[in-house]
Amino acid sequence: MSQIIDIAKQAKKASIPMSALSAKTKNNALKAIANALVKAEAQIIEANTKDLQKAEQEKLAAPLLKRLKFDKNKIKEVVDGIESLIRLAEPVGQTLSATELDNGLELYKVSCPIGVIGVIFESRPDALVQISSLCLKSGNAVLLKGGSEALHTNRILTEIITKASADAGIPQGWLHLLETRSDVNEMLKMDDYIDLIIPRGSNEFVKYIMDNSNIAVLGHADGICHVYVDKEADIDMAVSVAADSKTQYVAVCNAAETLLVHSSIAPKFLPALKEKMDALHVELRGCEKTLKYISVKPASEQDWATEYLDYIWSVKVVDSMDEAIEHINKYGSGHTESIITKDNVAALKFMDLCDSGNVFWNASTRFSDGFRYGLGAEVGISTNKIHARGPVGLEGLLIYKWKLIGNGQIVADYASGKKVFTHKKLDKKFNPS
Amino acid sequence: MSQIIDIAKQAKKASIPMSALSAKTKNNALKAIANALVKAEAQIIEANTKDLQKAEQEKLAAPLLKRLKFDKNKIKEVVDGIESLIRLAEPVGQTLSATELDNGLELYKVSCPIGVIGVIFESRPDALVQISSLCLKSGNAVLLKGGSEALHTNRILTEIITKASADAGIPQGWLHLLETRSDVNEMLKMDDYIDLIIPRGSNEFVKYIMDNSNIAVLGHADGICHVYVDKEADIDMAVSVAADSKTQYVAVCNAAETLLVHSSIAPKFLPALKEKMDALHVELRGCEKTLKYISVKPASEQDWATEYLDYIWSVKVVDSMDEAIEHINKYGSGHTESIITKDNVAALKFMDLCDSGNVFWNASTRFSDGFRYGLGAEVGISTNKIHARGPVGLEGLLIYKWKLIGNGQIVADYASGKKVFTHKKLDKKFNPS
Repeated sequence: MSQIIDIAKQAKKASIPMSALSAKTKNNALKAIANALVKAEAQIIEANTKDLQKAEQEKLAAPLLKRLKFDKNKIKEVVDGIESLIRLAEPVGQTLSATELDNGLELYKVSCPIGVIGVIFESRPDALVQISSLCLKSGNAVLLKGGSEALHTNRILTEIITKASADAGIPQGWLHLLETRSDVNEMLKMDDYIDLIIPRGSNEFVKYIMDNSNIAVLGHADGICHVYVDKEADIDMAVSVAADSKTQYVAVCNAAETLLVHSSIAPKFLPALKEKMDALHVELRGCEKTLKYISVKPASEQDWATEYLDYIWSVKVVDSMDEAIEHINKYGSGHTESIITKDNVAALKFMDLCDSGNVFWNASTRFSDGFRYGLGAEVGISTNKIHARGPVGLEGLLIYKWKLIGNGQIVADYASGKKVFTHKKLDKKFNPS
Repeated sequence: MSQIIDIAKQAKKASIPMSALSAKTKNNALKAIANALVKAEAQIIEANTKDLQKAEQEKLAAPLLKRLKFDKNKIKEVVDGIESLIRLAEPVGQTLSATELDNGLELYKVSCPIGVIGVIFESRPDALVQISSLCLKSGNAVLLKGGSEALHTNRILTEIITKASADAGIPQGWLHLLETRSDVNEMLKMDDYIDLIIPRGSNEFVKYIMDNSNIAVLGHADGICHVYVDKEADIDMAVSVAADSKTQYVAVCNAAETLLVHSSIAPKFLPALKEKMDALHVELRGCEKTLKYISVKPASEQDWATEYLDYIWSVKVVDSMDEAIEHINKYGSGHTESIITKDNVAALKFMDLCDSGNVFWNASTRFSDGFRYGLGAEVGISTNKIHARGPVGLEGLLIYKWKLIGNGQIVADYASGKKVFTHKKLDKKFNPS
């Protein structure tokens, strides 16, 4: 018990000097980590083999085994990821705004790390490398909890990263691996030392985290995404985008789960959709009106609130776009919604009124992703309404502080009217010399 | 019980069309509210007189009575506040970034309201007008709970604002007044409908809110601010800034509570400080080393963690700036810290390593304020590490959504390599036509 609090305190302590590291120090450390990973290839594969053997004995499902595997190719992938992170612009110390409050009194809003991040992720050991390098680049300390099935791999990776970063001048204690579920439960109580929790995992797990911690959580529980086929849709485009949204990769949060279609286009669209979905082996579950046009299973109320993550699609006919928007705002999870239409006015209204982080017009919901958005790196996807929303890049690990530089100014002089604020926007960066 | 959930649902419902209101509609509504307040002057003063009479009977303290008073001058003040809010740039619908993902596939990050805000404030009825107009300008629905001693004033103000805004086309249900503590407790459970809580009040109360809700909280509990007098400080400037930080207004969160002084300058600085503080009737409480130089009460461990909000100042001699920074990060509340020094290198280090929202160099801690910062309007002061930090202007009530415009693009084409992302920054605003 007390161990976790000590680890959290160490991380908090390390986070202070970490916040002031130069870009050069951080990039050198990232380079050193990449080199060390390549050098330790044999060790890493050996540790991973232990995990794989245990997982096979325990008859872990094939997709999980695949995610657990950390071979030469995966090492190359994570090293490539680190290289591209090195090339990203320095995120810390950026001047976000500059204001002259008065002659000789200048205020700067400057980006800085959040502090200590707690990240909980599932079986993929590559996530450990990715997350710790993102935290290093952004100057944050991090407490990591990986899947227990990847224990040996995670341990060796943590060891390599810890040593390489320490040698490169990164403060001791900035990175810790937690190993048990009870460690996580302890971590959730450490709101004095941990500033943000990023859970990656099943919906139930993310909900559990959100309900059991006072610490801010960045993430998403459900991903119930919708495609709405408007009365002014191009049928071919609608079928193509719907198919991609549903089936390009069914097991992910940005895959669509419910299709909404305007009643005036339903008679033409639904048979075309059915033909395509039959070919793709997708099971359709339709509302009462849907069943008039195509022969599919009936959908229940429960279907509208279900994230299938599977080759199943619920279908509902709506009499207006307003009904579609209302359905989305009621049953959706604020993740990603797409409208297919040739009508600009309808599209703009849909994008305004769907209360979701990502609102698309004539594009697949599957584009909702940090790499596809060009963010350079992805911290996660957030359905939060504050801080960061949708795919979150490095900026999700940053906040800012206000730096004020004066020469002895006091408020009494402004309160008395002896001096007056100028509040002039300055076009300069924080760089006192 | 069920009443609060109905109110919260109504607010959530209203928040959807509110998010898409034009600047013109919102500014017209603000203008209508200002006019209605002026017109209802007699009614407002009558209601306020009832509250004042009750408060006098209940022997409310003089400063609270003063805050409760809502007379002709106060009406003019809040109307002036609304006028200046109208002049502020429209915060919603601003393009924060634009990226071409591919030819004909454009991604925009666009500012939007958070949704439903819950605000809890103390006796000043002017806060009700200020907060509701800030929420209207930013397109948020709001649930307000004011001090019970201002009940009649708050009721009439809510009535006036509700009617004027409804007549100007603002969706019904966007504004609700809660009247009891138990209403607040119910509100704290409504994380399905309320997106952000902003508590303004005593430390105990803000802590209670933070501990008893899953909803994100924007605010600060303690304001334990420090002035650090470095060895390279100008003594006169240090005394002047320290005096302003402590005494310009003692009862507020950005007033300083602890003074730290480098041991090499303490023998000269402390007697000068003592003389000034004696003149200002400030009680000093010193560490053991302080007592060597000036004759004051001894400080206990508890003093370093106390927000006096009074004419009391704890004083500690440190042997290095590192010790000062460590003290600040241990006992401070992440609010505002100021270093007095002629040494650039020391000042920059201090501003980097103090983990506070506001870090000042040769300026009074009392500058830590939205109006002094030129934010145009202040939502509150936050010691959060995410979303918004320090004095928070209108942008604290905003988040963004990602809008993607395509012409039928599907992810399968990019996954297969048939198409390639361009990820080109665009210098244009979201404005499809």
